[in-house]
Amino acid sequence: MDIAKILSGIRIDQQATAPMYLQLANSLAAKIKECTLPSHTKLMPERELASLLKVSRTTVINAYRLLEENGLVTTRVGSGTYIAELSAGDGNTGNMPWEQLFSPPYKSPLASLLRSLVSSPTADDTISFAAGMPDPQLYDLTILENLINQYPDLPKETFGHISIEGYSPLRHSLAAWQTTLGIPTSPDNVLIVSGSQQGLYLLVKALVEPRDYVIVESPTYLGTIQLLEAAGARILCLPQSDTLDLAVLEDYLIRYRPKFFYTIPTFQNPAGRVMSLAQRQELIRLAARYRLAIVEDDPYSQLYYGQQPPPTLKSLDTYGGVIYLSTFSKILFPGLRTGWITAPPPVINRLAQEKQYIDLHSNNLSQIILHACLRQDYLAQHLAVVRREYKKRRDALAGAIQQYCPAHLDFTLPAGGFYLWCKVRPPASPAELLRHAAAAGVTFVPGEAFYLNQPDSPYIRLCFVTHDEARLTEGVRRLAKILASGAANAPLAADTNVRPLI
Amino acid sequence: MDIAKILSGIRIDQQATAPMYLQLANSLAAKIKECTLPSHTKLMPERELASLLKVSRTTVINAYRLLEENGLVTTRVGSGTYIAELSAGDGNTGNMPWEQLFSPPYKSPLASLLRSLVSSPTADDTISFAAGMPDPQLYDLTILENLINQYPDLPKETFGHISIEGYSPLRHSLAAWQTTLGIPTSPDNVLIVSGSQQGLYLLVKALVEPRDYVIVESPTYLGTIQLLEAAGARILCLPQSDTLDLAVLEDYLIRYRPKFFYTIPTFQNPAGRVMSLAQRQELIRLAARYRLAIVEDDPYSQLYYGQQPPPTLKSLDTYGGVIYLSTFSKILFPGLRTGWITAPPPVINRLAQEKQYIDLHSNNLSQIILHACLRQDYLAQHLAVVRREYKKRRDALAGAIQQYCPAHLDFTLPAGGFYLWCKVRPPASPAELLRHAAAAGVTFVPGEAFYLNQPDSPYIRLCFVTHDEARLTEGVRRLAKILASGAANAPLAADTNVRPLI
Repeated sequence: MDIAKILSGIRIDQQATAPMYLQLANSLAAKIKECTLPSHTKLMPERELASLLKVSRTTVINAYRLLEENGLVTTRVGSGTYIAELSAGDGNTGNMPWEQLFSPPYKSPLASLLRSLVSSPTADDTISFAAGMPDPQLYDLTILENLINQYPDLPKETFGHISIEGYSPLRHSLAAWQTTLGIPTSPDNVLIVSGSQQGLYLLVKALVEPRDYVIVESPTYLGTIQLLEAAGARILCLPQSDTLDLAVLEDYLIRYRPKFFYTIPTFQNPAGRVMSLAQRQELIRLAARYRLAIVEDDPYSQLYYGQQPPPTLKSLDTYGGVIYLSTFSKILFPGLRTGWITAPPPVINRLAQEKQYIDLHSNNLSQIILHACLRQDYLAQHLAVVRREYKKRRDALAGAIQQYCPAHLDFTLPAGGFYLWCKVRPPASPAELLRHAAAAGVTFVPGEAFYLNQPDSPYIRLCFVTHDEARLTEGVRRLAKILASGAANAPLAADTNVRPLI
Repeated sequence: MDIAKILSGIRIDQQATAPMYLQLANSLAAKIKECTLPSHTKLMPERELASLLKVSRTTVINAYRLLEENGLVTTRVGSGTYIAELSAGDGNTGNMPWEQLFSPPYKSPLASLLRSLVSSPTADDTISFAAGMPDPQLYDLTILENLINQYPDLPKETFGHISIEGYSPLRHSLAAWQTTLGIPTSPDNVLIVSGSQQGLYLLVKALVEPRDYVIVESPTYLGTIQLLEAAGARILCLPQSDTLDLAVLEDYLIRYRPKFFYTIPTFQNPAGRVMSLAQRQELIRLAARYRLAIVEDDPYSQLYYGQQPPPTLKSLDTYGGVIYLSTFSKILFPGLRTGWITAPPPVINRLAQEKQYIDLHSNNLSQIILHACLRQDYLAQHLAVVRREYKKRRDALAGAIQQYCPAHLDFTLPAGGFYLWCKVRPPASPAELLRHAAAAGVTFVPGEAFYLNQPDSPYIRLCFVTHDEARLTEGVRRLAKILASGAANAPLAADTNVRPLI
């Protein structure tokens, strides 16, 4: 074994945060644990390794000393430093049967997809229509200054543990703001959560037991499908249509007594649809009659590009059965990790009980910043800016499609939100299109991700807020090229009807 | 019904965040929903209510209009404004059977206790020995400036969605820092969590299924007992003693094949004990033989007031079976809501999968601030400051007890951490003491909170870091007075041995 060869592979970064001797110790520890450097191997003398790696001798000495403290090497005076005799599986996780210890995980076909959706747009030339994320270039980070302007005047307890339900001033300003939006809210109707993902998690935790029924729209937010499946819920889908099918809904209510109906009534994700006021009123009437709990997920209603959308279901709630969920991630930036739930106190209390186990309370810093934003009536101004910009982008995407691939993609222009829900005309298939698109540097989410089970959905979801107009247009050009070439056409299914003549 | 009387109760705060008409609308909405103002009631004319509440007429007009939009009042032209006819249970949660919808909650006798423990010290004169929280006066909030100094130079994506495992620069600097503490760590061994409470939650979620066995020390952190009970675990307690009873531990391993052993080896909560190096090495040897997963909860080891404590179990880990958990809450401040788990990649990956459902990733702002702290080697300096201060406080509390109630409280001086674990000498009882102490303006946690089932534990936990020396001494004086008076003595149990002569 050529030890010099192995060790010469070690890279020491002079600029790195970690002291060089630690970098070296870590690299060596790794090689020891993965047995690239087996027990009893004699390490190079400090001086030699130092010159080999172009570091000082002290660096090597300190690294060896640290390894020795950790029992990974032993020094024999006058002889040198040797890799220690490791008891079976020393530091080697291969010997710890972790996989056998874990509870059977819920393996979602979509998990990795959701994960990739929240990962920020790639640095390279890829144009992403996939991530449902505002454009970082539109983040107004100056609101962070609110923290610095305030902290010297705030009681220091503000930065200690606060109540599970959230930073009290924020609960007050949020309640006041929401009241201006037509939902009379008092602070004790508000639970601050660590992003609306956590809001959904808490709701599922508090309301859903295995084999419980839950109604969702189809298609719907894939994160919700995942949470419900992970909780063992039995999911009832309201058939896709432009109007809410109340007859089917009522039938579900009678047959299955579902725990709740999860809906995104405004600028729905992914379909971009808006439930009409009439439908909302009928839904509330029906829900009130059956005492059906409604979870209204509403991250987008403030992002309208024309008329204001109809009032929220929560503002029409006549029976105290609507749980309202929203977030600052889509209108400000996701890194604040702050959303909220508005619901009757019994619900808030039950959710707070669950939240206590999960993180005691949400991050104070974001809550302090957001309270300042609300108090300064900042949101209205910021919303005006992003609405103007996103409207342009929606129109740019729609225009590009009409210009470059009108024969292949059909869509209805959404009145707000983030998404254009496109039908890919056969014979092109979303899966094939995605395969070639990724190679051509453009990505999107295939429609099937938003269904429980529609692997052959002809739809794709294009998010139009992440990139500027030029990039959006270029993205469509790339898609158009693939579609025009026929490369995205579904492979012909083998003819299964041929039978031997008997 | 004297409507003027009811309405005159409404308070409008001219200074409040919420516009006055919203405050008014909310107050009225509340009275309508709670039926203090029943259907068909005629509201006062705008002008009269305005003068009654000393607000402008426009304020009242806008409030009435908002209520009308929300269907809570109706205006009859020429007649006035009336409370609307509300369909049964309009906005009245009484008619939504929430309690019947919730999954059976885990009702912990300790839940409210834990909740009160995280609530910040009360403003009044009460001296709290209860909350296990650093003294807000020692929070160094200037570290918040790191956010402002950095954000203009950071890529804006930094404030979007980041990876579930955490802010990559922080994972690197944390790994490097931890390596200096004797745990060779690479960034992919690190998962950033929203406080160590979340770390525990994720571990229980990933490892524990109902009826699984888990071993804990007795006494131990009550939050862990709660999480395990909520998960339906069967909890095996290692009998309380000054040394770890490895014979019992091994017997548990053979009989029950537990999922893991949860331990706080350094400055244990609540007992303040430190596991000796020899015990740690024996524990690791035993655990390695049985492939026992160890969860090492280590929030306090950097808070030593004399000798450095022995190396962490993780740094002695020879078989990759130790999962290390720590937090910045105790050494910096809890409002950062940031902790971390160090473990082999298979564990990190499994926990990240659970975390994705709970909050996608932890708060970016805190992670950016903490990365700066670690890069600037700030922690060492700050730790030196708090160590010096907390040592004084520990000694002040111990000294005061020896001066004022040596005959009633016994303790061993802890070498670090937050807590003095005191035995209350009979006939005084912790429960009685707490009852009188609360009245006298001093609180603490009775020992029973840290056991699965020891209602008559003679111990109490006194946290010595939250108040300065003078307050600590005053707190002890108050306790001493109660103890001296005999008021805290346990009520005599009725003599159950008396039997009728037959």
